[in-house]
Amino acid sequence: MEEKEISQAVIGRLPRYFRYLGDLKDEGVERISSQELSELMKVTASQIRQDFNNFGGFGQQGYGYNVEFLYNEIGRILGLDQTHHFIIIGAGNLGQALGNYLNFERRGFIFSGIFDKNPELVGKDVRGIKVQPMENMEQFVRENDIDIAVLTIPKASALEVSERLVQYGIKAFWNFAHVDLPVPEGIQVENVHLSDSLMKLSYNISRYKKEREEK
Amino acid sequence: MEEKEISQAVIGRLPRYFRYLGDLKDEGVERISSQELSELMKVTASQIRQDFNNFGGFGQQGYGYNVEFLYNEIGRILGLDQTHHFIIIGAGNLGQALGNYLNFERRGFIFSGIFDKNPELVGKDVRGIKVQPMENMEQFVRENDIDIAVLTIPKASALEVSERLVQYGIKAFWNFAHVDLPVPEGIQVENVHLSDSLMKLSYNISRYKKEREEK
Repeated sequence: MEEKEISQAVIGRLPRYFRYLGDLKDEGVERISSQELSELMKVTASQIRQDFNNFGGFGQQGYGYNVEFLYNEIGRILGLDQTHHFIIIGAGNLGQALGNYLNFERRGFIFSGIFDKNPELVGKDVRGIKVQPMENMEQFVRENDIDIAVLTIPKASALEVSERLVQYGIKAFWNFAHVDLPVPEGIQVENVHLSDSLMKLSYNISRYKKEREEK
Repeated sequence: MEEKEISQAVIGRLPRYFRYLGDLKDEGVERISSQELSELMKVTASQIRQDFNNFGGFGQQGYGYNVEFLYNEIGRILGLDQTHHFIIIGAGNLGQALGNYLNFERRGFIFSGIFDKNPELVGKDVRGIKVQPMENMEQFVRENDIDIAVLTIPKASALEVSERLVQYGIKAFWNFAHVDLPVPEGIQVENVHLSDSLMKLSYNISRYKKEREEK
């Protein structure tokens, strides 16, 4: 099955399908039509069919989709059948929160190390893993099979640290720093810009208030 | 200036413009052309002009944009000239991280309260604000001018808690719970589904690996 040239918009929707299908599976649902899935997820059935057609369609519409098969297929497409080891750079509250989040492990993301330049945080235990000083980062990445670096450090250091990590062999960044990382081709970046998300919420609150006032 | 019917895709890009313009302003840059901004942000100049045309264009292209004016205008459109008080539901690592994030305050988001059902967390100090038990939530929201509830609680309780918060008068949710909230019309929701974001990263790692293997 060819999986090339699929737009990031489609990819961005896959985890949500995966989440709903996981819930359905947990509830014991065996088959679901695109119409039922459409009502549940509040997207059009035609959108669902179009999205799934990118991956060969996942079975007959007339009889609905096999929930477990679809769940497993989407998981496989998302690469969740693989194991990825990640390190966290920045052991503040956010870094610790991400290290403590057990659900990632269920999806094959293994928390392997955490680093901070603050000596007061070094040695602190995060789910059985001790915070290491930044000086240990290079050796740790080179000697362990680390795919992903999670950046929860300030903007000012994120650029320099990410450059170094690319040299050490990191293939992907999950970036919480409030800056876009200029990485070489082939290095994957997924940004979580929390302030951007909060501003979008702010816009929608303001707009709704204005619309109400105009009525 | 009319600001209706602007797509969420455009809105979603505004915070990024705001971020780049803030950096340019801090660097003392006074004017910038759409071409220069395009190179900096790695989006097409035509995309920038189209986005800005939704808001009347923000001044002459030929002479470039006035950075400070554009920064202020986009901030105003995003509602950042308003003050929003928020509470955090869930005082775990993530809740504490968000309460401690000073930058939100610079944008007019005032951290006003934090709640948790865990008695061990109640009374804990988060940036000068003590964690309160869930029983205090109703009175606190009704007596204070709270716009936004930040949900950092598990999926299972998020639905019930969000329903109650809507009754108490909350107008917007910044939702970190791994579930879509079914809220009444007029209530704004901005989701940060961390697992979804990590799965998207996983997909891109897998796809790149496959492409390399095929070559």
